[in-house]
Amino acid sequence: MKKLVLAPDSFKGTMSSRKICEIMAQSARKVLPDAEIISLPVADGGEGSVDAFVTATGGKKIETEVIGPDHLPVPGFYGLLPDGTAVIEMAAAAGLPLTQKHNPEQATTYGVGQLMLYALSHGAKKMVVCLGGSATNDGGCGAAAACGVKFYDAAGEALIPVGKTLNRIARIDFSHLDADIRKVPIITMCDIDNPLCGKEGAAAVFAPQKGADAAMVSRLDAGLSHLARIVREDAEKEIADAPGAGAAGGMGAGMMAFFNSRLKNGIETVLDTVKFDRQLNGCDLVLTGEGKLDGQSLRGKTVIGVAHRARQHDVPVAAVVGDIGEGVQAVYQEGVSGIFSINRVAVPYEEACRRAEKDLSLTVENLLAWTETVRGK
Amino acid sequence: MKKLVLAPDSFKGTMSSRKICEIMAQSARKVLPDAEIISLPVADGGEGSVDAFVTATGGKKIETEVIGPDHLPVPGFYGLLPDGTAVIEMAAAAGLPLTQKHNPEQATTYGVGQLMLYALSHGAKKMVVCLGGSATNDGGCGAAAACGVKFYDAAGEALIPVGKTLNRIARIDFSHLDADIRKVPIITMCDIDNPLCGKEGAAAVFAPQKGADAAMVSRLDAGLSHLARIVREDAEKEIADAPGAGAAGGMGAGMMAFFNSRLKNGIETVLDTVKFDRQLNGCDLVLTGEGKLDGQSLRGKTVIGVAHRARQHDVPVAAVVGDIGEGVQAVYQEGVSGIFSINRVAVPYEEACRRAEKDLSLTVENLLAWTETVRGK
Repeated sequence: MKKLVLAPDSFKGTMSSRKICEIMAQSARKVLPDAEIISLPVADGGEGSVDAFVTATGGKKIETEVIGPDHLPVPGFYGLLPDGTAVIEMAAAAGLPLTQKHNPEQATTYGVGQLMLYALSHGAKKMVVCLGGSATNDGGCGAAAACGVKFYDAAGEALIPVGKTLNRIARIDFSHLDADIRKVPIITMCDIDNPLCGKEGAAAVFAPQKGADAAMVSRLDAGLSHLARIVREDAEKEIADAPGAGAAGGMGAGMMAFFNSRLKNGIETVLDTVKFDRQLNGCDLVLTGEGKLDGQSLRGKTVIGVAHRARQHDVPVAAVVGDIGEGVQAVYQEGVSGIFSINRVAVPYEEACRRAEKDLSLTVENLLAWTETVRGK
Repeated sequence: MKKLVLAPDSFKGTMSSRKICEIMAQSARKVLPDAEIISLPVADGGEGSVDAFVTATGGKKIETEVIGPDHLPVPGFYGLLPDGTAVIEMAAAAGLPLTQKHNPEQATTYGVGQLMLYALSHGAKKMVVCLGGSATNDGGCGAAAACGVKFYDAAGEALIPVGKTLNRIARIDFSHLDADIRKVPIITMCDIDNPLCGKEGAAAVFAPQKGADAAMVSRLDAGLSHLARIVREDAEKEIADAPGAGAAGGMGAGMMAFFNSRLKNGIETVLDTVKFDRQLNGCDLVLTGEGKLDGQSLRGKTVIGVAHRARQHDVPVAAVVGDIGEGVQAVYQEGVSGIFSINRVAVPYEEACRRAEKDLSLTVENLLAWTETVRGK
């Protein structure tokens, strides 16, 4: 085998995709000391996404202080990739781990906008904004305000809306949006389909895990509805029902409304951004992986996205996973040729997690040694 | 892939080797509908060994009533293989499941000798006697008596010794051993190294699980010592310290003393008997397996025996196993190219056992599909 591409997702709660790549690469080098080994850890949008992109492309991580979700300064960062793409992970400026208050009525995405501006001022030519892990429910108004969008209440007073004050917005002036931001293409990475409002909306589905009680959920939902109405009036855009509008406290809607961004499936965005298809040239085998693989909800799965593209290049794909669930037959039909669990002994989940790194290493070593043995035959 | 050989051991306590072959073959046929699939379930000497040999070679199982361990008639059987080899599983005439009394001072191997004679009278040209799972501790005297060997006490009275009366033997007359038995080669299949007597001997190590208390163990051990002394005097044979002499209540020693049999490693005997090497011609892949594989005590392991022979024919061997334990690196060094656990989800052992058949099936299907995919590359 001359070239091996590693493109795993994280094993949620156990190992990041970057860690998995490290382990896979180490095992691969033992079996294939002379092979080219390409590590493309797959970002999932949440925490660690910038790290994954930077590792995958050889980019750099750039740090700068921004306003955090609690309106206090926090150390933020973004990734600048070799092709000039800036990768901004929303969690880096408005993530749950950054809030002390856990109050989605007060939390702001202002810092996300600051990161976007900062990246632009340092030469970013395009932008990928990763939604996920947010502490906010402001419909992206904070980020928009940071980038120049003006919000006014009925009395004509300017405000920077948060969840609690969305219902006070009477008018939005889009005309002051930063001129440079208008020029660069902005992709928003988003893996959920939720609309902005209602039973499946941002507040109802995600605000409780950010600290909202039922009454607050109801107020937040009304606020997002109100925002959608003002956007309709002032910008003639329909954002409420777009799939993904409800991602990250309505940030999905905000990216469409304020930044004219397209929401794209995470794995497709990642694979485009890391130029996955180009890496398939001359590639003998792709190793991908997920914490669990089954027949449910294959949409957006890293393994499936990787398999679709590898199939077009006739490169075999093996998925190395934690658990193999029911109905996994569907995964083979999408182009995965082999699925291998890292479970080497029958032990409960907690113990399996503790053993995961070593088991992953041995499983990959075994799989590659086997593959190398039979390839020649 | 044109030809696949299946040669698994049993997964102890979960699936017999015959069952495993069935499941493997079924999975293989899904992936390789046109391939030749050879099933060679590996006998382990204990219960089910005759079934395994008969399945592997297309032989037949022949039933006949014999004297059981409690001196009462039981339905016995042996296997007659196409090349004229009779396979006798000691457990079929003197096995633990056949005794009500669980008294190794009284239990007899007489029926084992009857099976040998019966097989000969039906044309057996060689014989394989599988030790294992016995209820007895008579040093094989019962089997010898059934085949014509005469035992006398100090008063010159004939007796058929059992564990309790071994110490009464004063003289053994080997001259009446059945003439036909003398003519056929008899291989004794035995996977343990224990000597006849002492701390590592048959009584000390194995009699407790047959129902002996400490005092009985001591009497049985003295009886076996006495038997060895008489054999030394009357036949000029040293049997006490031979590795395996202590197998199956001293039946190992008895097979050497009375039947001039060689004790052979189980897996080597099985592979010779089922003509494993011949099946490797044109074979693309061997699947073997065990319940658990680790770096400990590789001697006598099915997987290792299979790998040694396959390596000589340059055929890759994959082991499909229950658990993969520590130190398994040693197994690769013996010629196994891949080791795949059937554990697909992290669950405790009891649940893994309940899922074992289905998990085995899916694991084999996945492995063969993967192998087929990369073979062409």
